[in-house]
Amino acid sequence: MTNITKRVQSLRAKMEKYNIVAYIIPSSDPHQSEYVAERWLSRTWISNFTGSAGTALVAMDHAGLWTDTRYFLQAETELAHTPFELHKMENQFSESYTQWLCKNLKAGDTVGIDGYNFSINQVESIEKALQKKGILLKANVDFISQVWEDDRPALPKDPIFIHESDYLDLSIQDKIAQLKENTTANYTLLSALDDIAWALNLRGSDVDFNPVFIAYLLVGDETTLYIDQSKLSTEVKGYLKKANVTTKEYSDIIKTLGKLGNETSLSVDPSICSYSLAQHIVGPIVRETSQARLLKAVKTDKEVRHIRQAMVKDAVALTHAFIWLEENVATTQITEYDFAMKLAQQRSEQKAYYGESFPAIIGYRGNGAIIHYRPHPETAATLSPSGVLLADSGGQYQDGTTDITRTIAMGDDVSDEAKYAFTLVLKGMIALDSAKFPEGTLGGQLDILARQHLWSAGLNYGHGTGHGVGYFLNVHEPPQGFTAGPSTRSNSVMKVGMITSNEPGYYKADAYGIRIENLIVTLKDKADGFLKHESVTLFPIDRKMMQLDLLTQDERDWLDTYHARVFAEVSPYLDSKQKDWLEKQCAAL
Amino acid sequence: MTNITKRVQSLRAKMEKYNIVAYIIPSSDPHQSEYVAERWLSRTWISNFTGSAGTALVAMDHAGLWTDTRYFLQAETELAHTPFELHKMENQFSESYTQWLCKNLKAGDTVGIDGYNFSINQVESIEKALQKKGILLKANVDFISQVWEDDRPALPKDPIFIHESDYLDLSIQDKIAQLKENTTANYTLLSALDDIAWALNLRGSDVDFNPVFIAYLLVGDETTLYIDQSKLSTEVKGYLKKANVTTKEYSDIIKTLGKLGNETSLSVDPSICSYSLAQHIVGPIVRETSQARLLKAVKTDKEVRHIRQAMVKDAVALTHAFIWLEENVATTQITEYDFAMKLAQQRSEQKAYYGESFPAIIGYRGNGAIIHYRPHPETAATLSPSGVLLADSGGQYQDGTTDITRTIAMGDDVSDEAKYAFTLVLKGMIALDSAKFPEGTLGGQLDILARQHLWSAGLNYGHGTGHGVGYFLNVHEPPQGFTAGPSTRSNSVMKVGMITSNEPGYYKADAYGIRIENLIVTLKDKADGFLKHESVTLFPIDRKMMQLDLLTQDERDWLDTYHARVFAEVSPYLDSKQKDWLEKQCAAL
Repeated sequence: MTNITKRVQSLRAKMEKYNIVAYIIPSSDPHQSEYVAERWLSRTWISNFTGSAGTALVAMDHAGLWTDTRYFLQAETELAHTPFELHKMENQFSESYTQWLCKNLKAGDTVGIDGYNFSINQVESIEKALQKKGILLKANVDFISQVWEDDRPALPKDPIFIHESDYLDLSIQDKIAQLKENTTANYTLLSALDDIAWALNLRGSDVDFNPVFIAYLLVGDETTLYIDQSKLSTEVKGYLKKANVTTKEYSDIIKTLGKLGNETSLSVDPSICSYSLAQHIVGPIVRETSQARLLKAVKTDKEVRHIRQAMVKDAVALTHAFIWLEENVATTQITEYDFAMKLAQQRSEQKAYYGESFPAIIGYRGNGAIIHYRPHPETAATLSPSGVLLADSGGQYQDGTTDITRTIAMGDDVSDEAKYAFTLVLKGMIALDSAKFPEGTLGGQLDILARQHLWSAGLNYGHGTGHGVGYFLNVHEPPQGFTAGPSTRSNSVMKVGMITSNEPGYYKADAYGIRIENLIVTLKDKADGFLKHESVTLFPIDRKMMQLDLLTQDERDWLDTYHARVFAEVSPYLDSKQKDWLEKQCAAL
Repeated sequence: MTNITKRVQSLRAKMEKYNIVAYIIPSSDPHQSEYVAERWLSRTWISNFTGSAGTALVAMDHAGLWTDTRYFLQAETELAHTPFELHKMENQFSESYTQWLCKNLKAGDTVGIDGYNFSINQVESIEKALQKKGILLKANVDFISQVWEDDRPALPKDPIFIHESDYLDLSIQDKIAQLKENTTANYTLLSALDDIAWALNLRGSDVDFNPVFIAYLLVGDETTLYIDQSKLSTEVKGYLKKANVTTKEYSDIIKTLGKLGNETSLSVDPSICSYSLAQHIVGPIVRETSQARLLKAVKTDKEVRHIRQAMVKDAVALTHAFIWLEENVATTQITEYDFAMKLAQQRSEQKAYYGESFPAIIGYRGNGAIIHYRPHPETAATLSPSGVLLADSGGQYQDGTTDITRTIAMGDDVSDEAKYAFTLVLKGMIALDSAKFPEGTLGGQLDILARQHLWSAGLNYGHGTGHGVGYFLNVHEPPQGFTAGPSTRSNSVMKVGMITSNEPGYYKADAYGIRIENLIVTLKDKADGFLKHESVTLFPIDRKMMQLDLLTQDERDWLDTYHARVFAEVSPYLDSKQKDWLEKQCAAL
């Protein structure tokens, strides 16, 4: 019997004891994080599926894992030889796990969840869906702690550190003042880790790739940080004290909420705050979008200037790495993993580097079609001067977070079909980059600009077109994004100062993956007050992949202008050999 | 003192007596109709504003009218010399009347509404918004009946009639079977008038331009129509009896709901069913989108074939009218109103004509910029062979409802600026017509295709790009539409068989209005399973308004193909002089 089978068995034993017929294990944590600390990887522990999005459901005679198109191939591999069956969320009409429950359970049955790993909104919507069938929800059932005991990792103890003042615009006091101005409530409860890191200008390493730390923050007459005190150095303690921020133990948040009293109102984002934490609030709750999330999404002018500098450094690192690849691929054994390491190493030589912003996706040939592929040292494919390579990587710098994808022809044998798809993706990427739109436009309205040329050819891609990006923070930063379908992200208004990825793609299973990704900043056109984009990512797009006759004059002009800017901004930091290489890549079409 | 002032005074007297500090009067009726019978024109009666969308609010020291960009000019005129102040809803961020209430009322104050004129969803959302401020909502307050007594019109008594079988595809029995199949509830309550007309293949004339009749329909083990019995001819009675539909008096619906019992579940669309009617339901309510609305939106193949025939007739009528205008405008006094009448008269000569589908908008020069302008005999502008004319009109035929807008150059003096804007509008209209998109795409995703070229030039229009259209039914038919921003319409999925308008525009106040509108049908591309559009409206687009050098080859090809089809399909029904005229209009560019 495999480990996974044993784990499911012991969970089912608990379920039977407490008369719970189905138990839901999401991929989240008490802070609604996308990437979570190891202790909270319950969904992976129970199911073996390691993707960042997906929900496991264990019923008495069924174990299922729900995930979206990005993870189908990965999930099929990882769920093989486990009791878990893959439920494919093809689109918004696919059967969700709540729909599955309504179909397979009967009235009076009870479903269990650990309400700390679900937001208030999630619990309410699950409850409402199940009610239709007369199914009950018990939201305070933490079975995972009972069945995952011996080998469960502790919460991380790594120290937190101060975001260097050279790269900061607003002080803690500025940010706390903004938070107070933007709510009518007496206190604001922040529980999203990146909201807290932003508000306090502090960073940590509790979660891989996201420089955040596990904590709660209560902002009001007093501002208090709830955190494992052992993580606070003398320097950080002094820094917080100077900003009038007191500190308490992480778990004390529950006591504090109980003590605030009936009269004290609390601003809470019901899409972030965990259901179980909210149960401890006694005063009136003002339900509103996290002001920290909205404020943080709009980068200040100074932050945008820093980000532009980080992009130059990133381009220098990429130039080094791509030249190295080009020069050595024919003669040396270089795997996808080696190239990922090379990119990270080149970035690490840049000033104010902190680490990778996510695990690099280096997908050669068919591996490129696995949207969230991650090469591992033992299994990574070896590159050769042939076929198509997709490289999606990013860095955390104190002056900005980067995220760039380039798809290159490794040799002269790339098929016309792949070049055709690449050119359609490129046309879409240029269309979104070139868009002008009035204030108030939602990200979801713009998404189609990137897809229209693929759609005309009957092609598409199974992921969003773009996500918000943090400032030395999470590479996936809500609220905004370019996505299809009704969602909080697609319904978010685009605002001046936002940094968002623009990354259409096309994937042919077992053959190749294509994606072109720049980060773009939203700017205001002074002439007419409309909003527009500008790419802040600076790196050439491979002309060997383009079918030039499919490009309009406007699109060719866009490419020439972009490449001229890339060369002008990056070449001063290169030696003459590298400069020659970049000049060739950036020459007018 | 004006009438309006007196009416507001008597309403305030009632409000004072019952301790209601603000009273909301929407432009709706108990069936959530867009256009309502005269008896229910309370919002117009109290405020003098006649637009089809807008809400009046009377507080003790403020009277306000909230409406959107389409009606600003009209509302300013109509509200002059009344106590009403115009609240402009520029976009989704403008202060709504509930936000105004939260700002200006205090905790403990009570707001009143007549819950028959608000849907369940509307009442719940108003209640929720007011609760934040501790303001109470009383939803059963019908003050209008008390203050509008003597001169209030009765409900219409016009007979209803049978939609001719030649133009029908599905029988009553077919439709009732579909309704039953699509719900788990014991009964379905239909209260939208067009849903009822569709289900029973009956039409009426209780509402101007919409061939509907006032009724409720309860579908289940028995199917019962609640209607003023005097409206039923012997023929209609026999028709209903044959289809096993019983009839009861209109107001008996309340008694029936009370009698259905605790065990009988009822399918109710909370966005349509009035709050007050729902108060009479005793059994479990299954809240779901009206299945009649969803079924009716998807036209059958046979219906689409009929619609294509109706479009040919409509084009013949328009050809007659536009030739008449061209030949006579220089020598005869022709007003906007005269041209509207001419269009209606030409349509009335076509087979199976029933009436206009909405009051024609014939807007000459600056009048064209008033989006919902309607010429009146006394005030209509006189046309001359100069400037720009916008003509938006439509007909009700037994075999289809039409809605077409053309904008033409009346002379050779049209400014380059107007031609430039026209060409951008045209490019957008062609882009939306030419779109391909996968199943599951929402109307709100496609909207930008029609706006993108205007936006690039810093221009826009203040209305949706398109609305669903009924089959010998309402010219504005939910659910689908091409609109920006999060709404039920923009979140509706486009489906094969839907008929939707494609009508981008551009308006320059006091100068000209431009709009180009075709109805399009959604089809499936058999080659790749993607969806696409085809214009079913057939009438030339004025080349004198185009700046040809701004059109791409694809756009020119689209125009040539469209015009060739218009000529091929319409010319067989024209005499040789008319044929020559159309041939010239439809010649390749």
